[in-house]
Amino acid sequence: MFELHPRLAADTAYVVDWPLCRVLLMNDARYRWLVLVPRIADAIEIHDLSVSDRRLLIEEIARASEGLKRLTGAKKINTGALGNVVPQLHVHVLARNEGDPAWPGPVWGHSPAVAYEDSTRDAFIAQIVNAR
Amino acid sequence: MFELHPRLAADTAYVVDWPLCRVLLMNDARYRWLVLVPRIADAIEIHDLSVSDRRLLIEEIARASEGLKRLTGAKKINTGALGNVVPQLHVHVLARNEGDPAWPGPVWGHSPAVAYEDSTRDAFIAQIVNAR
Repeated sequence: MFELHPRLAADTAYVVDWPLCRVLLMNDARYRWLVLVPRIADAIEIHDLSVSDRRLLIEEIARASEGLKRLTGAKKINTGALGNVVPQLHVHVLARNEGDPAWPGPVWGHSPAVAYEDSTRDAFIAQIVNAR
Repeated sequence: MFELHPRLAADTAYVVDWPLCRVLLMNDARYRWLVLVPRIADAIEIHDLSVSDRRLLIEEIARASEGLKRLTGAKKINTGALGNVVPQLHVHVLARNEGDPAWPGPVWGHSPAVAYEDSTRDAFIAQIVNAR
């Protein structure tokens, strides 16, 4: 049975369930940063998924990527599945811009998150839920 | 027409062409680190690819991931498409282990590469070419 890893639950807000993935918003107001978690028990690596689930995954990554690009006008989308700390398979999809705190390096492990104001977070979640 | 970005060409060795991607080996002997570059002109974001090319991409990511896991016995595979410095769409797929130089953080931007000995590099390339 799929259960969200407690570290992911603690660091994010729920956005929506897409066909394969639970979509989460990282609670870091400095970025527009989604985390896609396939609702498949015990998946750790991308190659643990079936071919059909991988097709869903790449389409949901593309949907998040295109949505973030359109909503934010970001210079670049970054996508990553690391899992060195939290083994449960999860894919980060986030908007990057010149001059953001970690630019041009990766965001992972860069610096402590800055929590959202509730109203800003909720407004952005609504934009993602309603996108396309 | 597809042309490999000069920075990717400088930092890697050619491994093989799979149906969608040129497979490259990052010239950093501290990791077993592949870079998959879709041979599609002007692709920058994953959502720039067609649905059929995205299906190929995720299968080639899974193939690289599973091959690295089997060949190296690594604790974790890391996958990332950043492109903040080199815009041409390219996907890193690499093997990570506790105690490697960047562990548990990301490898990108962490520290200067350590070039392979030719013989070590060529032996690993042969393993990837012949895997599965």
